[in-house]
Amino acid sequence: MTTALKAPPLGPMLDDIVRGHRPHRVSGSVPANIPLLAAVPFNRFGIAVATASGEVFSSGDADVPFSIQSISKVFTLAMALRGDSSGTLWSRVLREPSGTSFNSLVQLELEHGIPRNPFINSGALVVTDHLMEETSDAATQVLRFLTAQAASTGPFIDEAAAAGELAGSSRNLALAHFLKDFGNLNRTAESVVENYVRQCSIMMTCVELAKAGLFLARDGRGARGTVVSPSDAKRIGSIMLTCGMYDAAGEFAYRVGLPGKSGVGGGILVIVPGECAICVWSPRLDAKGNSLAGTAALADLSDRTGWSVF
Amino acid sequence: MTTALKAPPLGPMLDDIVRGHRPHRVSGSVPANIPLLAAVPFNRFGIAVATASGEVFSSGDADVPFSIQSISKVFTLAMALRGDSSGTLWSRVLREPSGTSFNSLVQLELEHGIPRNPFINSGALVVTDHLMEETSDAATQVLRFLTAQAASTGPFIDEAAAAGELAGSSRNLALAHFLKDFGNLNRTAESVVENYVRQCSIMMTCVELAKAGLFLARDGRGARGTVVSPSDAKRIGSIMLTCGMYDAAGEFAYRVGLPGKSGVGGGILVIVPGECAICVWSPRLDAKGNSLAGTAALADLSDRTGWSVF
Amino acid sequence: MTTALKAPPLGPMLDDIVRGHRPHRVSGSVPANIPLLAAVPFNRFGIAVATASGEVFSSGDADVPFSIQSISKVFTLAMALRGDSSGTLWSRVLREPSGTSFNSLVQLELEHGIPRNPFINSGALVVTDHLMEETSDAATQVLRFLTAQAASTGPFIDEAAAAGELAGSSRNLALAHFLKDFGNLNRTAESVVENYVRQCSIMMTCVELAKAGLFLARDGRGARGTVVSPSDAKRIGSIMLTCGMYDAAGEFAYRVGLPGKSGVGGGILVIVPGECAICVWSPRLDAKGNSLAGTAALADLSDRTGWSVF
Amino acid sequence: MTTALKAPPLGPMLDDIVRGHRPHRVSGSVPANIPLLAAVPFNRFGIAVATASGEVFSSGDADVPFSIQSISKVFTLAMALRGDSSGTLWSRVLREPSGTSFNSLVQLELEHGIPRNPFINSGALVVTDHLMEETSDAATQVLRFLTAQAASTGPFIDEAAAAGELAGSSRNLALAHFLKDFGNLNRTAESVVENYVRQCSIMMTCVELAKAGLFLARDGRGARGTVVSPSDAKRIGSIMLTCGMYDAAGEFAYRVGLPGKSGVGGGILVIVPGECAICVWSPRLDAKGNSLAGTAALADLSDRTGWSVF
Repeated sequence: MTTALKAPPLGPMLDDIVRGHRPHRVSGSVPANIPLLAAVPFNRFGIAVATASGEVFSSGDADVPFSIQSISKVFTLAMALRGDSSGTLWSRVLREPSGTSFNSLVQLELEHGIPRNPFINSGALVVTDHLMEETSDAATQVLRFLTAQAASTGPFIDEAAAAGELAGSSRNLALAHFLKDFGNLNRTAESVVENYVRQCSIMMTCVELAKAGLFLARDGRGARGTVVSPSDAKRIGSIMLTCGMYDAAGEFAYRVGLPGKSGVGGGILVIVPGECAICVWSPRLDAKGNSLAGTAALADLSDRTGWSVF
Repeated sequence: MTTALKAPPLGPMLDDIVRGHRPHRVSGSVPANIPLLAAVPFNRFGIAVATASGEVFSSGDADVPFSIQSISKVFTLAMALRGDSSGTLWSRVLREPSGTSFNSLVQLELEHGIPRNPFINSGALVVTDHLMEETSDAATQVLRFLTAQAASTGPFIDEAAAAGELAGSSRNLALAHFLKDFGNLNRTAESVVENYVRQCSIMMTCVELAKAGLFLARDGRGARGTVVSPSDAKRIGSIMLTCGMYDAAGEFAYRVGLPGKSGVGGGILVIVPGECAICVWSPRLDAKGNSLAGTAALADLSDRTGWSVF
Repeated sequence: MTTALKAPPLGPMLDDIVRGHRPHRVSGSVPANIPLLAAVPFNRFGIAVATASGEVFSSGDADVPFSIQSISKVFTLAMALRGDSSGTLWSRVLREPSGTSFNSLVQLELEHGIPRNPFINSGALVVTDHLMEETSDAATQVLRFLTAQAASTGPFIDEAAAAGELAGSSRNLALAHFLKDFGNLNRTAESVVENYVRQCSIMMTCVELAKAGLFLARDGRGARGTVVSPSDAKRIGSIMLTCGMYDAAGEFAYRVGLPGKSGVGGGILVIVPGECAICVWSPRLDAKGNSLAGTAALADLSDRTGWSVF
Repeated sequence: MTTALKAPPLGPMLDDIVRGHRPHRVSGSVPANIPLLAAVPFNRFGIAVATASGEVFSSGDADVPFSIQSISKVFTLAMALRGDSSGTLWSRVLREPSGTSFNSLVQLELEHGIPRNPFINSGALVVTDHLMEETSDAATQVLRFLTAQAASTGPFIDEAAAAGELAGSSRNLALAHFLKDFGNLNRTAESVVENYVRQCSIMMTCVELAKAGLFLARDGRGARGTVVSPSDAKRIGSIMLTCGMYDAAGEFAYRVGLPGKSGVGGGILVIVPGECAICVWSPRLDAKGNSLAGTAALADLSDRTGWSVF
């Protein structure tokens, strides 16, 4: 259950969290297959909180753009659900924790081409394919959506980074062809992976991401009106809580107790239902692929504020 | 986020839920390997709500005892955490969703004998083994705990049922010997399985179970003082949400949005943090082993009351 | 152990086998993903034996060309071993039975991109990639090899069939990209799959295939001199026996007792070491993907002649 | 194909093999869970050949008894087939290579309790259970069989070793209870494992084992008449070739080219159809659980003699 924040005030608290959690020496890892991500200085750390009442608090490198990577999956899912008048999306992807690595083909084979949830790579490819039914350039649509929600012209697709990441996308191409083989992909494998990689290569700041994710804390109401229904907003939150942190969803729920979604760019988006959206960013990752300093900072923030859904 | 209940009053609402969800014809299944469970009439349906303020509402067969089965795992986990001064429990069992069936040996082999979480059978056997370090008759300890929390002398171990279930416990014996082989069981496989089966054979009513589980909605404070710390109470809730409904945890979080734990006896215990504990019971199960009518009733109740952690 | 053939003479025996095993009604299946194979009349049945002494016996539809499909893997393996002066092939593919389906990605993931053997699809893609180091048009090289060994200008690549099969090659593309991701493919996934599919689309008759495979029964000596060393000939035989019949290698060794390699075109190539090479063809397949009538005919022939390595 | 042995004479050749392959320093491993096996001096090495014509050649420690362990599975399979008038054995166990470790529970779960072949532990437990339908003391029956075939009163069950091994048999007990759960075990899990362990604890010399296995090289004819039919003798050979060396069956077929069965006591029994049975023994094991020096010696012997079924 969330507890209303009394004191201390949020601004100084975020400053304190930046002081306590910004890395002082190199630890953790960076994704081996995405060269540009490895070039980010290890000691970057930013945090932003966008509240339901319209305030934004931030500290550290909260205005430095970073690659949102898998955090994009939250927004493509919301867009797909918004447009899913036929209600077919949930016949193509499940909503269960996977218990396996985010890019594993094993479970996909055992379950005949139906991904376990929209946040593992195979599931996100299906969601992207679903979005492409409306427009073949789904990545640009996602960018427009984020720009509108963040009320900022800052977000952009780093096309050079996307091209570099695409060159190392053999695993995602394998997943996409595998989905195609099971009949669970309408567009070509190559075009879906390209759109997926470009979505992941969107660059945003902590402040922009917190604002963009706020609709999930506000029963689906975003910057320009309803994004998704209240029940879909709750449901996206439930999927974030059970599936949002790769193979460490249980550990994150245990330590932080809030719906979250991480990306290998080092960002984590967290929702406090009814209260606020939080984005933290620090580039070095733990063994499960989640931001090392970011996860620790969120646990700290949860302890200090009492924010937890439990 | 939980929403304070305004109207309609809870009593009539539970009556209405019983009217709407009590099965009128046989559907779903019963566990093949536990004969006594199959004998329960298909149209049993009860529901009880124990509130943080001390009230209890109930309707239907809420005073009929049933076999709590895996719901016992919530209580043995709480007891083990309470007594885990050495902090060793979490080195023997993880806190991640399993993505596989509740009694699968596959993941246990791949992960070298460390169960994925305390609510799959292998994890519960480890928790039971942990409890047995204090007393070899762990099942009786669990019964005493439940009797005290429920403030009722009603709960009892159905020893005949336990003996029958033990005779069909080959799968659990396989799991226990497998854990033993990996060095993750201190007592003999046979004694741990026996204690586990006897815990599962505890008979309780919906009213008793809701009252016994209330400490989880009250920051760990039970009928006779603190059961677990506030943080442990939250953490048990997070494990229930991510792992409590066998291989349908994600679906349950999506539909109901509350921490829950089901048993193949047809009961489900649900926690509304800060508000109440709910127990629903109806014996026929869906394909994942969760009460068919019980799950539907909880989704209905969640919609009517707005109770949801998201 | 092989037993020298005494009587009855081979010609009449083959006629008798054709009479006994040619299908009279539709049974078994055809590969769903390769339309052209499904169009072959169900009652085609041919058999040919090429002996070490230079004779060729045949009966039935032994001069009707059919798609050799996976039988090509025996020849690409021989060609790759012949040219493997660096000895690197066996660091890229193992020689163990797989215990799983011929096109499964599961084992490939668990074993980090090293295929279990050269006769499952992933292994054959690695062998093809290996061949392509010499010439990018490996399929044409394979055709030339077969033409030379069969001493016949008959074999040809059915390019229309190959194009059709390529369009349905999502699974093989998934495997190839997956191998690429593990660093076990040098050429592009697309080019390797294209070469692989064109090799599989080579059309040959039973007589031609029996002659082409004879070098394996003659310590590696083919129509135009040494193809592979005697030890490599034996070793290819051992891989055929343990891995040549998809997931039915054990059953085939048990019933027939000879090294064999089947294709989903309905052909089976069998080696009787020191004696002869046999090719049987009938298009309808059993559940494991091996020719139904072909397997039965070979078991019959093994019983009548005593041919068996055991 | 087997090649008749010409020269050099077998006696001196075995002496030469002992000189070349007896270990001079500690390498490889011993089974961690069977203490008595670890106590055998690392430099033990013996070899014996029993020919179809009745001669026996041997060298090194060929008269030192060792624990036959899994080599017993060849004989229990032969005994079970001999007595399987109902023909039910092959409905309870398959004949395919497993592709996984000898004591894995994974495949057993995926294939619903039907072991992949009689030489992995789960399959051997089913065979033992089958034997126990005739006599509850199956181990003593196996001992009698071996004594008769070896024409020696030497073989004995090391009951102390068996008791020690039984105490560490958690994995086998897990397999047995798992089989029981799937309905593929008639006797109790405990009694089957006890019989299985006692069979494995039979002590024999290389000379005795070579003589006892000779019936498999002689179309099923043993020391005292027919043991199994010629076709069953061939079929046991085919199972040895495809499944006899744990997860290295393909490698052994590739290097040695003969049907073999190894045990973690360091022994390997090999059949040269029509010619002879060979037993080699050296206690240190490779990573797959097969005798390190024994495997090398057999590859050497195969090269020198030309003995190979391919």
